[in-house]
Amino acid sequence: MPNFAVKYFKKEMENKQTAILLVHCPDKQGILAAVTDFINVNKGNIVYLDQHVDYVQNTFFTRIEFDLANFIIPRDKIEEYFHTLFASKYEMDFKLYFSDVKPKMAIFVSKMSHCLFDILSRYYNGDLNVEIPFIISNHPDLAWIGEKFGIPYHVFPITKENKAEQEAKEMQLLKDSNVDFIVLARYMQIISEEMIQEYPNKIINIHHSFLPAFVGAKPYHAAYERGVKIIGATSHYVTSELDAGPIIEQDVARVTHKDTVQSFIHKGQDLEKIVLSRAVEKHIDRKVLVYKNRTVVFS
Amino acid sequence: MPNFAVKYFKKEMENKQTAILLVHCPDKQGILAAVTDFINVNKGNIVYLDQHVDYVQNTFFTRIEFDLANFIIPRDKIEEYFHTLFASKYEMDFKLYFSDVKPKMAIFVSKMSHCLFDILSRYYNGDLNVEIPFIISNHPDLAWIGEKFGIPYHVFPITKENKAEQEAKEMQLLKDSNVDFIVLARYMQIISEEMIQEYPNKIINIHHSFLPAFVGAKPYHAAYERGVKIIGATSHYVTSELDAGPIIEQDVARVTHKDTVQSFIHKGQDLEKIVLSRAVEKHIDRKVLVYKNRTVVFS
Amino acid sequence: MPNFAVKYFKKEMENKQTAILLVHCPDKQGILAAVTDFINVNKGNIVYLDQHVDYVQNTFFTRIEFDLANFIIPRDKIEEYFHTLFASKYEMDFKLYFSDVKPKMAIFVSKMSHCLFDILSRYYNGDLNVEIPFIISNHPDLAWIGEKFGIPYHVFPITKENKAEQEAKEMQLLKDSNVDFIVLARYMQIISEEMIQEYPNKIINIHHSFLPAFVGAKPYHAAYERGVKIIGATSHYVTSELDAGPIIEQDVARVTHKDTVQSFIHKGQDLEKIVLSRAVEKHIDRKVLVYKNRTVVFS
Amino acid sequence: MPNFAVKYFKKEMENKQTAILLVHCPDKQGILAAVTDFINVNKGNIVYLDQHVDYVQNTFFTRIEFDLANFIIPRDKIEEYFHTLFASKYEMDFKLYFSDVKPKMAIFVSKMSHCLFDILSRYYNGDLNVEIPFIISNHPDLAWIGEKFGIPYHVFPITKENKAEQEAKEMQLLKDSNVDFIVLARYMQIISEEMIQEYPNKIINIHHSFLPAFVGAKPYHAAYERGVKIIGATSHYVTSELDAGPIIEQDVARVTHKDTVQSFIHKGQDLEKIVLSRAVEKHIDRKVLVYKNRTVVFS
Repeated sequence: MPNFAVKYFKKEMENKQTAILLVHCPDKQGILAAVTDFINVNKGNIVYLDQHVDYVQNTFFTRIEFDLANFIIPRDKIEEYFHTLFASKYEMDFKLYFSDVKPKMAIFVSKMSHCLFDILSRYYNGDLNVEIPFIISNHPDLAWIGEKFGIPYHVFPITKENKAEQEAKEMQLLKDSNVDFIVLARYMQIISEEMIQEYPNKIINIHHSFLPAFVGAKPYHAAYERGVKIIGATSHYVTSELDAGPIIEQDVARVTHKDTVQSFIHKGQDLEKIVLSRAVEKHIDRKVLVYKNRTVVFS
Repeated sequence: MPNFAVKYFKKEMENKQTAILLVHCPDKQGILAAVTDFINVNKGNIVYLDQHVDYVQNTFFTRIEFDLANFIIPRDKIEEYFHTLFASKYEMDFKLYFSDVKPKMAIFVSKMSHCLFDILSRYYNGDLNVEIPFIISNHPDLAWIGEKFGIPYHVFPITKENKAEQEAKEMQLLKDSNVDFIVLARYMQIISEEMIQEYPNKIINIHHSFLPAFVGAKPYHAAYERGVKIIGATSHYVTSELDAGPIIEQDVARVTHKDTVQSFIHKGQDLEKIVLSRAVEKHIDRKVLVYKNRTVVFS
Repeated sequence: MPNFAVKYFKKEMENKQTAILLVHCPDKQGILAAVTDFINVNKGNIVYLDQHVDYVQNTFFTRIEFDLANFIIPRDKIEEYFHTLFASKYEMDFKLYFSDVKPKMAIFVSKMSHCLFDILSRYYNGDLNVEIPFIISNHPDLAWIGEKFGIPYHVFPITKENKAEQEAKEMQLLKDSNVDFIVLARYMQIISEEMIQEYPNKIINIHHSFLPAFVGAKPYHAAYERGVKIIGATSHYVTSELDAGPIIEQDVARVTHKDTVQSFIHKGQDLEKIVLSRAVEKHIDRKVLVYKNRTVVFS
Repeated sequence: MPNFAVKYFKKEMENKQTAILLVHCPDKQGILAAVTDFINVNKGNIVYLDQHVDYVQNTFFTRIEFDLANFIIPRDKIEEYFHTLFASKYEMDFKLYFSDVKPKMAIFVSKMSHCLFDILSRYYNGDLNVEIPFIISNHPDLAWIGEKFGIPYHVFPITKENKAEQEAKEMQLLKDSNVDFIVLARYMQIISEEMIQEYPNKIINIHHSFLPAFVGAKPYHAAYERGVKIIGATSHYVTSELDAGPIIEQDVARVTHKDTVQSFIHKGQDLEKIVLSRAVEKHIDRKVLVYKNRTVVFS
């Protein structure tokens, strides 16, 4: 079935093998100069640099991506060197990624297919530098999609009684497959505290409202009731507080008095899928940095 | 000062003298046919007709504008005829306006000028079929604008102690001038229940957030704190419940991690003034109909 | 394979069996009253009515949908009755559709999958009241999608030499299957005059620019070169003049100096698929009316 | 008339006295490190830094703003030092500005007031760090605005015959007042080549379309004729080729079949004024950099 194989990730062809540094630390004079100088003198060609200073928090953020082809420091030593030379000196919090290491993404769904379809559409289009080991659901409804695309689809029906038990099984599955992060593609269950703690800023949810308006269930009904003229969708990392985690992406659409709850839901689906997929892409591309319940999203 | 005189209202030249009917009632077969037939047989040429049926509430809404030139029923009898022939039969709630009767609009401001300027810009551009008898403020800061444009500017400084007394004076002033409706152009005082009751769905406020998110004071600070990626502004009629009245118009703008509370405020000012002015224009053009705390806004 | 079956079309459950009238004619007093009266007296319950008067062209447009359950005139006589009673009297151009007759839609693709995926996502979600007899392509690249979803995928490779011949085969296939309309889901071939004449206002294209800017090939390259700050996509009916047919839907996205041609293409794909799918939905729902190379798109 | 005085420029209170560097040059390793290091070692505290690398053109762009309070190099020597130490070494094109030197901005208008009003609204609100020595017009219609606000208003009626002569007078006036840049606030005359050469990338125009669609006169009429679903406005620097200069800012608004040319014009005015004012603010804040007929607009 060669035609069905996932296309190479597009950027593999375009880009070189790179290292990606995500950094934040208290802002001091000379940090950026020091870091870029370090990369330059060691023959790392910078292919992307964006930085941000939050003058209110006095905090410096940067994302630097550099070509490893001629980099003098061995790949498996970069983290150690960077830690020794910069991290303690500048009280840095940093993460290092390599573009050729694909993260593993589990997708959780319930009964609605639009977000799942949109993610798979991008995946097969070669836009997502990621592996999808499996789909988890509390319902069998979308099993046919997993089947068609050859992605294992695990059903864990959840009731009040078995919730802890079923989540434990899910957690085991996630660990066994070394899943890096989770996408809740309209998964209609509240994630337990244990799973949130295990995957901090690694569970991406799509909420079908313009948060913080209409937190909780049935936001389109609430929006209709309130008579809003614009509806929205919000993608955020899941934290202990319901629908209150760091926002990654939002978008909106106009509605009028001619719209109904049904048309809110229908129009909203386009928002939900695009907003979620954009957030997932940004996360995969290591362009999201969380700081004090807010995100820096590099371009 | 002939150059300074308000230009004729643009539409006076374009349009004929018209009557405007705003109607809502329980939806029944044949209402629209009956009403349009009534206008047609009496030689009223319909120049605008829009209608809406809310199938959830089973309610019919229409706005019909017709030329009076050849209308057989005398202008001052139209309301009576319409009442007799339709209103009771269809349990109608209707309002009748004439395009050549300009409503009187009082503007309330505090210290910020952007919304006031935007309204005056449209007024002198001939876009608002309205009279502005005066501006009311709790601060003298913008008195120079009233002075420059020759619009009386009344200052009523408000403290906890004198609030009731000052509002009573304002109410007297509004009544003496036969003010039809009030625009709160970033007026930073909560309107008392008495005034709200006196001007039901006739006080237009601009709230500097995407309601119902961030109700109350300092919404830009709250939005920044929450880390939203989009900010908004909302124009609504003032009701007893704070920031919960029927929404007329909303709009939004993108923000990023690079924005600060200051830039939220700066970007927000463009939203506020455009959203408020659009709502004011719709109100003046008799295109807004309130029903159960929601609005029908005809195009 | 029961899980894979297309879900019932959602609205079948919600809605009754209805007739849909799309009408335009010279504007005269009493048309709407006459038509709605005709439907009412014959016991057709109107479930949707929108109308528009173009005062520049002096033309009246309406879309009326009514429940057939108690309609006195037999279904197969409605067209005749309407023609006799109204069409000649008012010089009407009208079309009559029934909600339970699904149109047949052929999809043409080349190598890019995003638009095709988005349409199929909606189809399997039960949002499109349509049948998809087959997919036609000039390339085999997306055959696996047809295969997976069980939709016949016909490849007609096109060269300068064989174009006429291949299109003739396509036309035969379209006729044999009684295809009602065609969707060009990023089909990278110019449609011949013969096919356009055969399917007037029945071929829906997606152009990857904000038409009429950047007509023709490589619009993202041209947009990048021009330094625009906003890119767009346009869905339109195909006419003899390239990219100049009646526009059904457009949408846009912001870009900055940080964007490249590659990121224009990437961001543009989201626009293209959503804009095309919205246009296709409107067409299927019989909400688009073409008049003098412009469209009336009912809500 | 103390109340009427222009408020201090808001940022004077907030910000320190700063120097602003706008730089572009071929991209080489170490440029940003070198420049930031230079500022740091000389005790210039960087309060803003944004940079951009165009990998297609292999060009580096940056805007750096730093506090002068403790800067070791005397203010009037900075340009020389920077030139000596960096400009030739890196083939840099750079500009140096000081935040306490207000540029002089001439406004050109014809008969429409909305853009002029919007600029003045911001000016009196303290948002524009600029001086406005005068307004120039080819018509007397808006003289009353200049009069009211105490800004000299010079009328130069232009005919085919006297165009060269009148423009020569305008140029003299601009020079005599040391005008730095010109804003065409819906000025309905084509600017002559001489003036364009004298003010390269210093004449900001607002075009009432989504360029490059509908270049030239009457774009709203053309947009209506074409049946677009979105209209736009574009602010750009004026170059020799009509409406083809570097785009600074664009924005759009939705329209429908219900709109007319008149409502396009009406809705478009809000776009025009906001887009022009945003472009003017960016220019005044030294955030626009022109390169090969495209702009880098820093945030």
